[in-house]
Amino acid sequence: MKLLYPTTLRLNRALLSGFPTVTLHAYDAKAPTLPEDLLDAEILVTWANSPANLSFAAQNLKQLRWIQSLAAGPNDVLAAGFDRSRVQVTTGSGLHDRTVAEHALGLLLNAARRFYEMRDWQLRGQWPGHLGGPQPDREPGTFRTLRDARVLIWGYGNIARCLAPHLTALGSVVRGVARSAGVRGGVEVFAEDSLPRLMPETDALVMILPGDASTRHALNRERLALLPRHAWVVNVGRGSSVDEDALYDALEKEEIGGAALDVFEQEPLPEGHKLYGAKNLILSPHAAGGRPQGAEELIVDNLRRFLAQQELRNKL
Amino acid sequence: MKLLYPTTLRLNRALLSGFPTVTLHAYDAKAPTLPEDLLDAEILVTWANSPANLSFAAQNLKQLRWIQSLAAGPNDVLAAGFDRSRVQVTTGSGLHDRTVAEHALGLLLNAARRFYEMRDWQLRGQWPGHLGGPQPDREPGTFRTLRDARVLIWGYGNIARCLAPHLTALGSVVRGVARSAGVRGGVEVFAEDSLPRLMPETDALVMILPGDASTRHALNRERLALLPRHAWVVNVGRGSSVDEDALYDALEKEEIGGAALDVFEQEPLPEGHKLYGAKNLILSPHAAGGRPQGAEELIVDNLRRFLAQQELRNKL
Repeated sequence: MKLLYPTTLRLNRALLSGFPTVTLHAYDAKAPTLPEDLLDAEILVTWANSPANLSFAAQNLKQLRWIQSLAAGPNDVLAAGFDRSRVQVTTGSGLHDRTVAEHALGLLLNAARRFYEMRDWQLRGQWPGHLGGPQPDREPGTFRTLRDARVLIWGYGNIARCLAPHLTALGSVVRGVARSAGVRGGVEVFAEDSLPRLMPETDALVMILPGDASTRHALNRERLALLPRHAWVVNVGRGSSVDEDALYDALEKEEIGGAALDVFEQEPLPEGHKLYGAKNLILSPHAAGGRPQGAEELIVDNLRRFLAQQELRNKL
Repeated sequence: MKLLYPTTLRLNRALLSGFPTVTLHAYDAKAPTLPEDLLDAEILVTWANSPANLSFAAQNLKQLRWIQSLAAGPNDVLAAGFDRSRVQVTTGSGLHDRTVAEHALGLLLNAARRFYEMRDWQLRGQWPGHLGGPQPDREPGTFRTLRDARVLIWGYGNIARCLAPHLTALGSVVRGVARSAGVRGGVEVFAEDSLPRLMPETDALVMILPGDASTRHALNRERLALLPRHAWVVNVGRGSSVDEDALYDALEKEEIGGAALDVFEQEPLPEGHKLYGAKNLILSPHAAGGRPQGAEELIVDNLRRFLAQQELRNKL
């Protein structure tokens, strides 16, 4: 049985070995085709494949039974036309928790500490004195520190669980929103129908929603209007979950404090797009994740399950 | 007995009350003089005073016995010419730990996640694609995440103790350097003679040194040369501890990865100063602290000690 693994990241092949019936084959995930002798593969590991490569695989891997994507949201695999009646797909959920959480923390601090604004002054060769020196301490109606800040995390999965303790340690008051309510990792998570009550009590809204039809424009004009004027929006989930036109208007009219976006409705954001110049907009080029951590362990765990005909982890 | 407190920050007067022999008097710390009826004060609390105000106080508060500065390093008070034989000075050490630690963490993440470089691209209306998408994970010889990063904190007091747990939680390997070696808060702290061994093993050097004669240009050309080419320098201590000419050269020649400076030899950094345009230099306008936290508790504790003729806290 052939397992194909991509050369788009450095996998430690030795950590995948030890299954006598499985042979391991590297492949170029950017190439438009796959070599003839790999077309009878049953298992495909994907990471940063080109659309052409995935499309070719969907058409030509006739014996494929399982795709292990290393992406948290394998939208690329789902769009490639694989026959889902015979090919199961598992995601890289969990491989990106720490790196996305770190990026989200960085964006929150960038917003609170105004590093983006300091940069603008630096580039003009001017001292941004209004951002330094003696400052008011934790004034209500501002977002200038994570201490005592009310952070609402919308989309409460692994990444949120990983992020929350860092925020709590810095003194933030963290609450969550998800489809189902409950207490997760010591954080109170509310159902989405609580948003009208929670959003006005929010200094920073962190969005970690997946990109599917149900989350499209979850943050729309109406919900943006519920945020206080000083509140920031941070999105490290998927761009489709934010109505960018509504967000742009809220930024330009200063109806919210700002937005730090790692994801966009269209990526790359086209040159000349109005968001580049929006007031208090911090742009990050889908850089939060992109570095799967512990991929070999996930592949091996699922490979063992696959061979044992057990339920796979992260099954879509 | 008169205690003068400044209106440069919002102190909760009620929290200072309850000492029958002490009367509380607000004063304008920016004014060039003090009112006639306050000149017999014995206790002076200072925060962001103008040099003229402090100089006037030094000349005219003839019965002054104690100055409680709210600054961690009250260089302004020491320079004002108070008669130290009769006036004791206590610092605001501890009031700035959390806010400076938060800023230092933000600067480290700004450096690792390249937010400053993303900003430059954003301002040009361009997508910084090379900083996003699939990225190598924790490559040796880079500083792109705090996970597994070797962080060396030079100057290991309260602020370092407050910062270190946040770094450790993000996966960094933290070590310290101070005048005396030991284990502090679970972190191994080395004496300064270990610097030649430690600096080559450092991905990020965080400087939190006080500004006195002994620390002047502690980070000089010779020591900068010990850092790996990818290493970052973060300074949230005092500007005088870094030889800025040597740092500028190291940045321009790309002998280090970058520097994030909150403090400078001269503040404000003059317009047109070469550091504004140095490669991979993140400028922050002395913004790390500036927000004393829990000032009333410190004043009250020291006031009680003062009245009881006990040793004061944070005595200089």
